[in-house]
Amino acid sequence: MVALAVGAPAAADLGQGMDIKALTFDVFGTVVDWRSAVIAELSALGAAKGIDGDWAAFADAWKACYTPALRKVNAGALPWTNVDRIFREELDALLPQYGLAALDEAEREHLNRVWCRPQAWPDSVAGLARLKTRYTLATLSNGNFAWLVAMAKHCGLPFDCVLTAENARAYKPDPKVYRMATELLGLAPSEILMVASHNYDLAAARDHGMHTAFFPRQENGPGQTTDQTADSDWDYVVADLEELAAALGC
Amino acid sequence: MVALAVGAPAAADLGQGMDIKALTFDVFGTVVDWRSAVIAELSALGAAKGIDGDWAAFADAWKACYTPALRKVNAGALPWTNVDRIFREELDALLPQYGLAALDEAEREHLNRVWCRPQAWPDSVAGLARLKTRYTLATLSNGNFAWLVAMAKHCGLPFDCVLTAENARAYKPDPKVYRMATELLGLAPSEILMVASHNYDLAAARDHGMHTAFFPRQENGPGQTTDQTADSDWDYVVADLEELAAALGC
Repeated sequence: MVALAVGAPAAADLGQGMDIKALTFDVFGTVVDWRSAVIAELSALGAAKGIDGDWAAFADAWKACYTPALRKVNAGALPWTNVDRIFREELDALLPQYGLAALDEAEREHLNRVWCRPQAWPDSVAGLARLKTRYTLATLSNGNFAWLVAMAKHCGLPFDCVLTAENARAYKPDPKVYRMATELLGLAPSEILMVASHNYDLAAARDHGMHTAFFPRQENGPGQTTDQTADSDWDYVVADLEELAAALGC
Repeated sequence: MVALAVGAPAAADLGQGMDIKALTFDVFGTVVDWRSAVIAELSALGAAKGIDGDWAAFADAWKACYTPALRKVNAGALPWTNVDRIFREELDALLPQYGLAALDEAEREHLNRVWCRPQAWPDSVAGLARLKTRYTLATLSNGNFAWLVAMAKHCGLPFDCVLTAENARAYKPDPKVYRMATELLGLAPSEILMVASHNYDLAAARDHGMHTAFFPRQENGPGQTTDQTADSDWDYVVADLEELAAALGC
């Protein structure tokens, strides 16, 4: 493990005998802050419609549909369904509870795509740009392919390619997702570094033979207590993407 | 059809009632000049080994394996095989004919990857950069995914995402390839413009409902006579990628 204290110099941590050629990134939470954008757009919509609401609670309730639905798909209890449809269904259920039942189809589709309009965390674009000079950078997200492409474009995230659960028709942490990435990148698992702010994702990547890098985010807001520390001896435990770039010699 | 004389002003051709949101690109030949790079690397290798040879003939013989092998895969006569393996098998067959039987495994793998180290045509990077300001840009190549990622990185081609035949496990012009692109991009076929210097590719894209853009290249060298003109009334017939960008208002 390369357990860096936050902000500690990283130069001594190079050359761990890993022959890493590509980095795969979880995106929602790890690279982008989805919650601030969702709250901001809901707040603006509420203001435009003259409706008050607890838009943070709306955002959190909306996001809460995600994990159970993905588990159902992986368990075979739901047929393959892209995340954009999962979020849209939940949105339609939530709108009446917040006085927004009158939104028309175009407004609903536009609002649903707020997940493609997040803000990158402050270190993300610069960190990725540094890492890109030496490594191939791929997304490895549970989001649907089109949303990831749109998000990368919206945020200016300099990925070399987009890979998502949709390419495997299974969701992380299903091993099929990591195997798909390994095959399409034409690499051995040990040549890939999975980067995520979610311990469950790194555990599955390690089970597949990938290397692992963790840094904490507060994607669920300032009260978040989960995933604030490394649950295991991940290969890199750093503060953010800029520090990961430094640790990898970029 | 928007049949532009080469170099003619394109501004009048905007707004054909097409709601194009993404462009998919053939890459080998259309965006990059593979042949010059293959000849240059073979020549340098020959010089280093003290061997004379007709390296252009080698390059052409090497490329000639491609179409028959892909047809065999699409016909079910060969199981799914990525292009990198098809080229490697042909390379191993050709090397002894050119006095290079002694190349070791690492040299062979490096040489085989010359297909990831082509030169972009002079207008490609600038043309793509202009198009990227308004459209989502995806490769749609018969090359394997890893090679396309490496090639885009080598040439600095600013695609938003990489899609290849490998994602569909079928080769163009099999309809499965175009359908895969449509599904992953989350668009209707009519929202996609297929860009290629090969008429057969555009015919298959049109059959799938995509819009089409053609410009000629001389990927097979100065003597090439095929695909020098549009075989059909493609939506855009232009001189190169810069002119396509102008025709699309970028």
